[in-house]
Amino acid sequence: MGFAKEHRFLSEIGLGPRNPGCYVNGIWRGSGPVVASLNPADNQVIAEVVEASVEDYEEGMKACSDASQIWMQLPAPKRGDIVRQIGDALRAKLLHLGRLVSLEMGKILPEGIGEVQEIIDMCDFAVGLSRQLNGSIIPSERPNHLMMEVWNPLGIVGVITSFNFPCAVLGWNACIALVCGSCVVWKGAPTTPLITIAMTEIIAGVLENNNLPGAIFTSFCGGADIGQLIARDSRISLVSFTGSSKVGLMVQKTVNERFGKCLLELSGNSAIIVMDDADVQLAVRSVLFAAVGTAGQRCTTCRRLLLHESIYQSVLDQLVGVYKQVKIGDPLEKGTLLGPLHTAASKENFVHGIEVIKSQGGKILVGGSVIKSEGNFVQPTIVEISPDAPVVKEELFGPVLYVMKFQTLKEAIEINNSVPQGLSSSIFTHRPEIIFKWIGPLGSDCGIVNVNIPTNGAEIGGAFGGEKATGGGREAGSDSWKQYMRRSTCTINYGSELPLAQGINFG
Amino acid sequence: MGFAKEHRFLSEIGLGPRNPGCYVNGIWRGSGPVVASLNPADNQVIAEVVEASVEDYEEGMKACSDASQIWMQLPAPKRGDIVRQIGDALRAKLLHLGRLVSLEMGKILPEGIGEVQEIIDMCDFAVGLSRQLNGSIIPSERPNHLMMEVWNPLGIVGVITSFNFPCAVLGWNACIALVCGSCVVWKGAPTTPLITIAMTEIIAGVLENNNLPGAIFTSFCGGADIGQLIARDSRISLVSFTGSSKVGLMVQKTVNERFGKCLLELSGNSAIIVMDDADVQLAVRSVLFAAVGTAGQRCTTCRRLLLHESIYQSVLDQLVGVYKQVKIGDPLEKGTLLGPLHTAASKENFVHGIEVIKSQGGKILVGGSVIKSEGNFVQPTIVEISPDAPVVKEELFGPVLYVMKFQTLKEAIEINNSVPQGLSSSIFTHRPEIIFKWIGPLGSDCGIVNVNIPTNGAEIGGAFGGEKATGGGREAGSDSWKQYMRRSTCTINYGSELPLAQGINFG
Amino acid sequence: MGFAKEHRFLSEIGLGPRNPGCYVNGIWRGSGPVVASLNPADNQVIAEVVEASVEDYEEGMKACSDASQIWMQLPAPKRGDIVRQIGDALRAKLLHLGRLVSLEMGKILPEGIGEVQEIIDMCDFAVGLSRQLNGSIIPSERPNHLMMEVWNPLGIVGVITSFNFPCAVLGWNACIALVCGSCVVWKGAPTTPLITIAMTEIIAGVLENNNLPGAIFTSFCGGADIGQLIARDSRISLVSFTGSSKVGLMVQKTVNERFGKCLLELSGNSAIIVMDDADVQLAVRSVLFAAVGTAGQRCTTCRRLLLHESIYQSVLDQLVGVYKQVKIGDPLEKGTLLGPLHTAASKENFVHGIEVIKSQGGKILVGGSVIKSEGNFVQPTIVEISPDAPVVKEELFGPVLYVMKFQTLKEAIEINNSVPQGLSSSIFTHRPEIIFKWIGPLGSDCGIVNVNIPTNGAEIGGAFGGEKATGGGREAGSDSWKQYMRRSTCTINYGSELPLAQGINFG
Amino acid sequence: MGFAKEHRFLSEIGLGPRNPGCYVNGIWRGSGPVVASLNPADNQVIAEVVEASVEDYEEGMKACSDASQIWMQLPAPKRGDIVRQIGDALRAKLLHLGRLVSLEMGKILPEGIGEVQEIIDMCDFAVGLSRQLNGSIIPSERPNHLMMEVWNPLGIVGVITSFNFPCAVLGWNACIALVCGSCVVWKGAPTTPLITIAMTEIIAGVLENNNLPGAIFTSFCGGADIGQLIARDSRISLVSFTGSSKVGLMVQKTVNERFGKCLLELSGNSAIIVMDDADVQLAVRSVLFAAVGTAGQRCTTCRRLLLHESIYQSVLDQLVGVYKQVKIGDPLEKGTLLGPLHTAASKENFVHGIEVIKSQGGKILVGGSVIKSEGNFVQPTIVEISPDAPVVKEELFGPVLYVMKFQTLKEAIEINNSVPQGLSSSIFTHRPEIIFKWIGPLGSDCGIVNVNIPTNGAEIGGAFGGEKATGGGREAGSDSWKQYMRRSTCTINYGSELPLAQGINFG
Repeated sequence: MGFAKEHRFLSEIGLGPRNPGCYVNGIWRGSGPVVASLNPADNQVIAEVVEASVEDYEEGMKACSDASQIWMQLPAPKRGDIVRQIGDALRAKLLHLGRLVSLEMGKILPEGIGEVQEIIDMCDFAVGLSRQLNGSIIPSERPNHLMMEVWNPLGIVGVITSFNFPCAVLGWNACIALVCGSCVVWKGAPTTPLITIAMTEIIAGVLENNNLPGAIFTSFCGGADIGQLIARDSRISLVSFTGSSKVGLMVQKTVNERFGKCLLELSGNSAIIVMDDADVQLAVRSVLFAAVGTAGQRCTTCRRLLLHESIYQSVLDQLVGVYKQVKIGDPLEKGTLLGPLHTAASKENFVHGIEVIKSQGGKILVGGSVIKSEGNFVQPTIVEISPDAPVVKEELFGPVLYVMKFQTLKEAIEINNSVPQGLSSSIFTHRPEIIFKWIGPLGSDCGIVNVNIPTNGAEIGGAFGGEKATGGGREAGSDSWKQYMRRSTCTINYGSELPLAQGINFG
Repeated sequence: MGFAKEHRFLSEIGLGPRNPGCYVNGIWRGSGPVVASLNPADNQVIAEVVEASVEDYEEGMKACSDASQIWMQLPAPKRGDIVRQIGDALRAKLLHLGRLVSLEMGKILPEGIGEVQEIIDMCDFAVGLSRQLNGSIIPSERPNHLMMEVWNPLGIVGVITSFNFPCAVLGWNACIALVCGSCVVWKGAPTTPLITIAMTEIIAGVLENNNLPGAIFTSFCGGADIGQLIARDSRISLVSFTGSSKVGLMVQKTVNERFGKCLLELSGNSAIIVMDDADVQLAVRSVLFAAVGTAGQRCTTCRRLLLHESIYQSVLDQLVGVYKQVKIGDPLEKGTLLGPLHTAASKENFVHGIEVIKSQGGKILVGGSVIKSEGNFVQPTIVEISPDAPVVKEELFGPVLYVMKFQTLKEAIEINNSVPQGLSSSIFTHRPEIIFKWIGPLGSDCGIVNVNIPTNGAEIGGAFGGEKATGGGREAGSDSWKQYMRRSTCTINYGSELPLAQGINFG
Repeated sequence: MGFAKEHRFLSEIGLGPRNPGCYVNGIWRGSGPVVASLNPADNQVIAEVVEASVEDYEEGMKACSDASQIWMQLPAPKRGDIVRQIGDALRAKLLHLGRLVSLEMGKILPEGIGEVQEIIDMCDFAVGLSRQLNGSIIPSERPNHLMMEVWNPLGIVGVITSFNFPCAVLGWNACIALVCGSCVVWKGAPTTPLITIAMTEIIAGVLENNNLPGAIFTSFCGGADIGQLIARDSRISLVSFTGSSKVGLMVQKTVNERFGKCLLELSGNSAIIVMDDADVQLAVRSVLFAAVGTAGQRCTTCRRLLLHESIYQSVLDQLVGVYKQVKIGDPLEKGTLLGPLHTAASKENFVHGIEVIKSQGGKILVGGSVIKSEGNFVQPTIVEISPDAPVVKEELFGPVLYVMKFQTLKEAIEINNSVPQGLSSSIFTHRPEIIFKWIGPLGSDCGIVNVNIPTNGAEIGGAFGGEKATGGGREAGSDSWKQYMRRSTCTINYGSELPLAQGINFG
Repeated sequence: MGFAKEHRFLSEIGLGPRNPGCYVNGIWRGSGPVVASLNPADNQVIAEVVEASVEDYEEGMKACSDASQIWMQLPAPKRGDIVRQIGDALRAKLLHLGRLVSLEMGKILPEGIGEVQEIIDMCDFAVGLSRQLNGSIIPSERPNHLMMEVWNPLGIVGVITSFNFPCAVLGWNACIALVCGSCVVWKGAPTTPLITIAMTEIIAGVLENNNLPGAIFTSFCGGADIGQLIARDSRISLVSFTGSSKVGLMVQKTVNERFGKCLLELSGNSAIIVMDDADVQLAVRSVLFAAVGTAGQRCTTCRRLLLHESIYQSVLDQLVGVYKQVKIGDPLEKGTLLGPLHTAASKENFVHGIEVIKSQGGKILVGGSVIKSEGNFVQPTIVEISPDAPVVKEELFGPVLYVMKFQTLKEAIEINNSVPQGLSSSIFTHRPEIIFKWIGPLGSDCGIVNVNIPTNGAEIGGAFGGEKATGGGREAGSDSWKQYMRRSTCTINYGSELPLAQGINFG
């Protein structure tokens, strides 16, 4: 049995109606549960996947451990060349992969393609990085001593990703981890197994073409049980986890207990502040992208809109107007701005969230309902609510925007900083004194602090991640690569004396 | 009642027979338990200290929170100038402070003075750093956008230090934290309260001379209860903890649960490898300093000596000879190499450890006994034992050295890496192919990887810390300062368009 | 014979009525011409100095060459400690030295003290730097190869400074050169020999206290002939020259011919742009400091004021009003804002300049005359003139400000960039789109690009210097230190194979 | 008329029998002299080229100036993507281009291909760099001030390359200059115009495909007259010149007089030192590649071999043996190690050089003659000579190796450093104390300092270039990119006060 006509492109990126979900020691296999991947737009099955069993996992990790001895000894620029080839292979399949992201995850096509483009960008970036993973030579206070800071590969990096960015987050992690000399073990989200498989196929193809062990990149479709195996596995030096603060905290605890390292990208609850002097049109467009894009299922989604009292009503009016015109529908269709939520459970969660909102005094200004259909569609929603309502402190994963009023910048920053999460934040203003206060010690406490742009849509050149309950990790650009390596402070005495630091005499 | 004659110098660094143990909001106080500080050389009381109560703690933290608003807004170079003055004030009291370190902790005088010198060095280093806490301007892919990486102060940094470096570890943390714009809350070890007080006096004096709130540096004498208050206190963004892996893990768990940051410097279990071509004399001198220095109570103390079979016996013979000549006695006395263990409990622990060693097949080659005296003196001890004995995987905090034989470099590295801890390590050889293998991906897995020098005695210019059960933190030099700051990725749109990253079109 | 009463403080910084002007091999001597140092406020002799002869020079350089072998082998942090002591020694004499700068150079006392403070700041900065002169370890594409970038000392750095910053510029160069491991040969300006001697005394004292060869710092009072000896001397790897573009070009040519390195800080011709939305009060205060401070004799002095047409007249009126109230007089007197020009020749030059200005259509709005007195006093002067007048392209070293009108930002930037020099520039505005255009690719072409502050008064943490005819050098902070070192790209093959880069096979 | 059969591949990289030699404003043209490109293996014409006239030059520069306004405003990562495409286009033609390099320049095919691979590597490296051209945010000592170091494009970079690396050196410069935002003006060597044209075609194709002005890359075939136009042209901010020290000095003088910047890669005269403990086989293979590779026409060619007296004769014997077996012949033929010199004039120069050598006491141990043929073939030559012979201080551009004997390391380093040039150097030893002395302050004074590898064959990740008469420039990796940008130190006051640096009060 083949694919429905509109899904035939899947066979061009290596997918069939039923797919083994594990890439283990260079071979595709799967002996765990069979799961169906559903199209969020109609909840029909796209294809089936056989997830990993414990045996698959163990075999995969054994091969991966062996492969790591080979991979870490390959010079970094050679590893960079492999990543370059991965980028080129992705580029050749950009449209198909982007289409699959839209189909399986539910985000609109431009966002699906944009997500794949982001991995390609990461590959290009990582290639350059492969000649710049620089250590340091630090002046020693002792004659005839060379002091160095050397960066070595970690060995194996585990990457657990979430449904909302089913491949970009892999790219952030894997591109860097690979050039840094670590093998990668990937567990994609349980509801986006086809993307996990398609991406893995691309990478596997490059490894094979270069006669390298496939186990350098080991991939498992699976759920929380596989996630736990990864968290507990002391062969995995670093676990990079993307997901909720609650689960992240558990992962971190498990990994810490075996003295492993964690890199966490957890919940967000981002705010946009609009000052009285803001370019309102720019702000409204930005809020729309930040709150409705990806159906509000980005970690950087704007969930809180803080409006200066002087422009409160006019911005709100414009925004409500815009919300009413948002085209909802099939994410693959041209012109759609709002696709479905990812799963039926997400829809349930939305419904429940609206109830809680109402019970805490929230006033629905627009939206607030689900849309009757086979799929998981809901209305883009604006809620007027107090910043103190408990629901505002939580991350409701859907297109629900809380609107609040403020009088002073100080007050706006306090509200911005008043939630447990600390991922992204943005202000709209043209006044330098506000801009630099906002990015300074008394400004936003988030990892991403924007001005006149949305809270979402980060570039790869900067470090991505957030503070507080968002977990403190940083991925993608800047010096994020250091998290994927092991630092040694080395001192070589090449003289024949033994001078001691701090001028100590001993014996 | 005053001090005994030989302790009169204490009054010149602000100490009396009974001392309030908390520097809170610029005032000395203490309403908790009264404890006596004992001289490890004779277990006589040096002076008494009133520890912190919960009320002292709470009042201190409140003032510290307020002070942090002032301190973080002071330009970094101005903060650097305060730290410069602290360095100068310490320099003026170097000998007295070093003497106090020897007296209260038990390490020999050159080490006591060296420890204080290390803080002074840290101050000098931090002053320069105060003009180099550089953020980045990163090329944006969007026109009319400025992308920046900005570093802001954390707010308050908690520092919990251990008895073995009662002041240097404070220096590593506080000098950096202060120039980085954070206030510091310090809890010294319960058994070295006089050093905590004397150090705090110096810093307090500088703050007062500059009309700055004393609460910028808040200091508590106290035990595990105060440590727990710090770990749980969400006003403290970063907790830097030095101590055992076991306690460190608990601290980390507590801090993580409130989504705070941890910087851990935990147990070590360092090895020295002596290759067949080593300069044996250099190696023997180094092992002596590494294993006997500070009575084996450094986290970087060499606890395992790996000798190539071809030189095994000759090195061992020389070492045993040297051990027999080690002068044991009053740490303040000239010529002493081995002072007492820090507490009577440490001595008990040594006795127990020797029993366990014997029960696991260890053969005592020299030492192995306590020395009858009022103080906590024990013999420097060498034990022949298998690398597989469980006791070898643990950190026995005293001058006990395990000796093992190996045949190949690969084997030696495997033994080096076979313990849970990953702090320091050293090899003695002159062959480049071994040196660079040792510091490379398949070499030592420690944070400190030395060649032809001991495992201990780090310089401040490099980053200090270790992997695995040692906790992964890095203190002192290199880019350790980044851990004391909050990183924001900022993008400012100064144009009037809204281009999106990855070329996405939305709406 | 002693000093006049008000000059008695000079004896406290080691000066007498007649002073040998060379510090050569640790000894003060001088066998060249005798020159008198004059007080610019009354052209009376302060004291006499015996300048360097060719023999003095040669003996000094010989000793300096020898000393460089010692100095370059001292570990950088040890060199840093020497520089720290120099900073402390300067701090102890700050007021006296600042007073001497005012007395001999003619700048007002707060500026004199500020200049000495700047060297002290440089010392503090350089101490930190002494542990951060980091090389790199760069990933090699070849297995078993270590690629490094190593920084080594240059050997000897020659520093030729100008009268207008008779000691700060030495500080920028010498503090960095010394921690970088080079000896310094200094020739101060011929008209500020007392400062040269007093500064040298301080440094010499520290070297002597540390039992280091005095020749590490070698100092000559002298004129162009000594400057030429330095330029031609192939023992001097780097010549750092501060002065006019014309002389700088000649120095560069001479140094290049012997394949030496040059670091040039040459003429400036800085502009301030005031936009229509500027804080006019802030702008006026800034222009006053930038145009009148140091009597217009800074290289960063604002010489051109570009006013938006909409605020042209009002800013000009305010400025003329302020100029009329500038207190002119003895620079050591409290309240004086404008001291004398440095020499009688400078006054002549001012008179000639005013004539040229008039002949080219310049309209004197205020000032324009010399002040009758024994000293070299002139009036602070504002001239309305076309940006195309040839005189505007030149650097007239005095308090003469050219005012021009513009309509658009583009026009203002074109005028700013239309002069041969490219040192400093500033704009006053609050609009981010203007600010970031101004500092961007199509903005100011200067090395210093300010917003809402004057063109002068740089901090040491940044790199100081300018483009085009200003010479392209960078001094003080940032990575300026790299200019004072020699970079080696080192590759160590520690394997037994010979793989070639770019995958080449040979033989 | 077409190509000879063996040259038909040329038409696949855009070449014909007669080619316009200028790519000006996106169009191929040429109105200057017609020159023939000769095959060095037989001195037969490969094809003809019409060089640039002054009019071609002027038109090209005008268009380039205009294009630079567009290019510098394109975000750097977008520029990086263009360079990525250039890399891919080169990769697609690697073998043909490599073949052309061998054919026209005369180096053997593996080296021809390796040279093209090096540009491809540079492209990959530059793509990553395009997101890492980072400025800095530096802590300001003034409240409410932001201090930044911003890097802006230079505008236009002129690149003048030499025949020996007819395209790699372009790659080092152009890849970096382009991502840094500058347009490139290239003048290739007069005797390798076909490579210039073929390379330009590739780049032009990419620009055209992206609808960018061709003038972003402007290319001229021509001789010294065009070189002088470039040197004098004040529209060209930076002139990167590769060639002899003599010509380089003239270029530098011309460029400096208009206050432009120079980046010089001039003559080399590299030495290899073989210590008594060296791996002789490794050393002999390395010397062969370093002295005979590229027929001794690399700037990094080993021209001086310094042998420890204890191994002098044995190394020499082996080397002479190897030299006698070097296969000389058509560089395109498999197995050839030594192709022809580049031109008949080079052959003349070789003949003359041998005469001078003999007249100065040099003893020819092997080689020393030209080979009778149509081409420019000469024998690989070893000469025993004193390090003091004047001819040893010069760069004889051919496969002539001077051999010398030494007794101590100190002596060997002195000989190494005794020539005017300072490009590359290498030592063969296994002793760390020698290795680190060699790369330290008292070691080699060259820009490239190797251990156990040849003097040539640099990787792109490091900075390439040399000291003294080699000109001091650095190209390719590390922070070489900074030379292709303009640095601005920017301070933004976003407060309403005007605090001054160094605590100065003014008015």
